[in-house]
Amino acid sequence: MEYNFSNKLAALKPSAIREIFKSLTDPTIISFAAGNPSPESFPVEELKALSAEIFANESTTALQYSITEGYAPLREAIAARQKSRFGENMVTDRDTTLVVTGGQQGIELSCKAFCNEGDAVICENPSFIGALNAFRSNGAKTIGVDMESDGISLSALEETLKNTPNAKLLYLIPTFQNPTGITMSLEKRLGVLALAKKYGVVILEDNPYGELRFAGDDLPTLKSLDTDGIVIYCSSFSKILSAGMRVGFVVAPSEICSKMVVAKQVEDVHTNIFFQMLCYKYMTTCDLDAHIAKINALYRRKCNLMLDCIDKYIPKDKVEFTRPEGGLFIWGTVKDTTDASNVVKLAIEKKVAVVPGSAFNCDTEAPSPSFRLNYSTPSDEQIIEGVKRLGEVFAAL
Amino acid sequence: MEYNFSNKLAALKPSAIREIFKSLTDPTIISFAAGNPSPESFPVEELKALSAEIFANESTTALQYSITEGYAPLREAIAARQKSRFGENMVTDRDTTLVVTGGQQGIELSCKAFCNEGDAVICENPSFIGALNAFRSNGAKTIGVDMESDGISLSALEETLKNTPNAKLLYLIPTFQNPTGITMSLEKRLGVLALAKKYGVVILEDNPYGELRFAGDDLPTLKSLDTDGIVIYCSSFSKILSAGMRVGFVVAPSEICSKMVVAKQVEDVHTNIFFQMLCYKYMTTCDLDAHIAKINALYRRKCNLMLDCIDKYIPKDKVEFTRPEGGLFIWGTVKDTTDASNVVKLAIEKKVAVVPGSAFNCDTEAPSPSFRLNYSTPSDEQIIEGVKRLGEVFAAL
Repeated sequence: MEYNFSNKLAALKPSAIREIFKSLTDPTIISFAAGNPSPESFPVEELKALSAEIFANESTTALQYSITEGYAPLREAIAARQKSRFGENMVTDRDTTLVVTGGQQGIELSCKAFCNEGDAVICENPSFIGALNAFRSNGAKTIGVDMESDGISLSALEETLKNTPNAKLLYLIPTFQNPTGITMSLEKRLGVLALAKKYGVVILEDNPYGELRFAGDDLPTLKSLDTDGIVIYCSSFSKILSAGMRVGFVVAPSEICSKMVVAKQVEDVHTNIFFQMLCYKYMTTCDLDAHIAKINALYRRKCNLMLDCIDKYIPKDKVEFTRPEGGLFIWGTVKDTTDASNVVKLAIEKKVAVVPGSAFNCDTEAPSPSFRLNYSTPSDEQIIEGVKRLGEVFAAL
Repeated sequence: MEYNFSNKLAALKPSAIREIFKSLTDPTIISFAAGNPSPESFPVEELKALSAEIFANESTTALQYSITEGYAPLREAIAARQKSRFGENMVTDRDTTLVVTGGQQGIELSCKAFCNEGDAVICENPSFIGALNAFRSNGAKTIGVDMESDGISLSALEETLKNTPNAKLLYLIPTFQNPTGITMSLEKRLGVLALAKKYGVVILEDNPYGELRFAGDDLPTLKSLDTDGIVIYCSSFSKILSAGMRVGFVVAPSEICSKMVVAKQVEDVHTNIFFQMLCYKYMTTCDLDAHIAKINALYRRKCNLMLDCIDKYIPKDKVEFTRPEGGLFIWGTVKDTTDASNVVKLAIEKKVAVVPGSAFNCDTEAPSPSFRLNYSTPSDEQIIEGVKRLGEVFAAL
C-alpha cells in the first residue's frame, strides 16, 4: 500500500541531533554533540530507597491510572519550589501547575492549544530543535528573530510581530539558551513582555536549565514578571533528577491549562505516576538544593575546563565562543563565513562530533556559521583531547 | 489577556468519563463508571524486586535520555510475544515495533501521521472516547458506523467509505470492544480488511484487551490477517502489568513507524525508560502467561457475578446486555427508547454510577439508549449491591 501522510508530518525530518547521536557508535569519536545531563546528576541511591518505599506503601496508587493534571502533592511541591526559587509571582491565583511528560510535552501542548495549521510561532534564531519540530508537527510555521549577545533583538522582534499577524506564540529560552548558552538581560525581558502584550501574542517561556546556574546572579523569569497572564512557563526535572523518567511541568493561566489538559489527555492520559510520586518524595524528603549545588559545581568545572582548552587550542581570530553562566552548552561562531558545515565535517574526520548550527535554524534551508558544544556529557579527558582536535581543524583551515 | 485557542481544541471537551471519575468523591456511590484494571492485576512484588535490580545494576541507562523508538530489548520482547500470542504474521519483515506512552499515544500518533485538519476517521459507533477525542484534537472528523452483535456493520461501513473520500483511517477495536464488549467475527474481520484495501484506507487496530480473554477462543487480529501493510496495531501493558506506568506499543509497517517516531520525538522524546526496562525484565524473568491467567480468572468471576446479578435484578423486558468473553465492560441498552440519559441520572440518585452511552458517540450531539458497566474495579459486594440498585431504577421506570 502507498501511504498518504499528513502535510504537517510529511516535511518533518528526525532531529539532526538525535540522528547524530544514533550514529555515534564509533567509540573513538569524542562527542560534544549530546545534550544529556551528566549521569552524576542522578541521585541514584535516594531514588532507589524512595522507590522501595513507594512499592511497599503506595503501590496501588503508583501503578493505577491517575488524573491527567498530575499527582496533586507533586503539583503543590512544584508550585512552592518555583515560588521560593523565582519569586512569589511565579504561581499566581489565576495560574495552574500541571505535570507533563517532560518539558517537551509542555511545549508541544502549548502549540496545539493555540496554533491552527499555517499559524506562526516566533522563535529566537537559532533555537531548540525539539521545540521547532514540535511547532512544525502541528502545522505551524517557525519564524526566527536574530539573537544578540544579551538575547533576542527587540527591534527585529517588533518588526517580525508587525509583519506576522498570524503569530500565536513567542517561544523563548531566556536563561542559558539552547543552543547559544546566552541569557537574556533584564531590560530585554521587560521589553519582550511589553511587545508580547502590545501585539497580543502569548509567550512560551522554556526554562529547562534555569536551576543550572554556576556563575552570576539569577534574573527574574518572564513568568515572574508577567502581570497580564501572557506567559506559559515550561520546565522539568530532566536536568536535576533524571532525564529518562520524563517528568516536566507547566505553570500557566488556568484557562490555558484547561486546554492543555484536554490535549494531554488524548496524548498519553497522564504522566508515569510512579515517577511523579518519586519526584514528590525526593523534593520533600531529600535536599534538592544541595543536590543541585553539587551538579552546578560539576558543570562549572567542566564548562571552565572546556573554555580554558578553547583559549589554549583554538585560534581566537578564527572562532568566537559564548561564555555561559550556566546550562549545558557553548556556542562557537566561525568568523568570516556564513556556513560552518565544513568545520563540522572536518571535525568528524578528526573524530570529534559537534552539532552544526544549521540544525537549530528556524529556516531549515539556511546555513549557519556556528556549531554547538556540550560539556556535561564528555569526561575531562575527552574535553581536553576533543578541543585539541578541534584546534587542529581550525589550524588547518 | 483574552486567549484565542486553536480551532481543533476550542470545541474539545474533557472526557465525560474522567469528569465522572473526578466527581466520584462521594464514598457512598458505587461506581461502575471506571475503566481501570483491578489493582490485583499489578504484580507488585515482582516489579519491586526488579526495580531494585535496575537501580543497582543499570541506573545510568534507566535514568538518562534514551531513543524515541523505545528500549531495544523490550521492542524485541514485544515482537516475540505478539507473534507467539497472535501468530507469526503479527510482525513481518516490513514491520517495526515501537514503544509508546500508553496505547493512547499510539492512537494519537497514528492520526497525526495521516490526518490533515478536516480529514475523517471512520469509527465503530459507539467507540472509545479517548480515541475519538485524539482524532478531534488533530482537527479530524469522527464518522461513526453502527455496530451489530458481531461487530461493525459491513454494509454501513462500505456506504460510509464510499461517501467519505477524505477518510484517512478506519479505527477499530475488534476484540472486547470499548464500550460494548463486542468481539468482531472472523468473517467481518476479513470483510473489513477487504473494504479497507478497496478504498485505500489505513486500519488502526486497537487491542488493549486482547490478552483479557476469559471465555471462548482467540480470533486472529486484523494485523495478523493483513497482507498489504494496511494495519497499524496498538496495544499496551496497562491491563496486564500497570496502567499508571504508561507503557504501550505499536506494530506497524516501518514506513508508518518512521513518521510516528518523528511525531513522538516532539511529544515526549521517549517513554519513561526505567519502566520500559522493568517491562522487559518482567517479560523475560517472570511468568507473564501465568499472571494473565490469574487476572482472567478474576475478571471471569467478576463478569459472571455481574451478569448473574443482572439476570436476577434487572427486568429482561426493559434492558438488553452484552455478554462479553473478555475485557472490562458490559453494555446495557434500554429498550423502546433512543435516550437513556434519564436512567443514568436516576442511577446516580440511587448512588450508582454508570457511563451514559452518549459519551461514546461519534456524533457528540446524538443521544444513546445505552450505558456502560465496568466489573473490574468494584468489589464483589459493590457489584451485587450496585446492580440491585440499578434494578430498582428500572423497576420504577
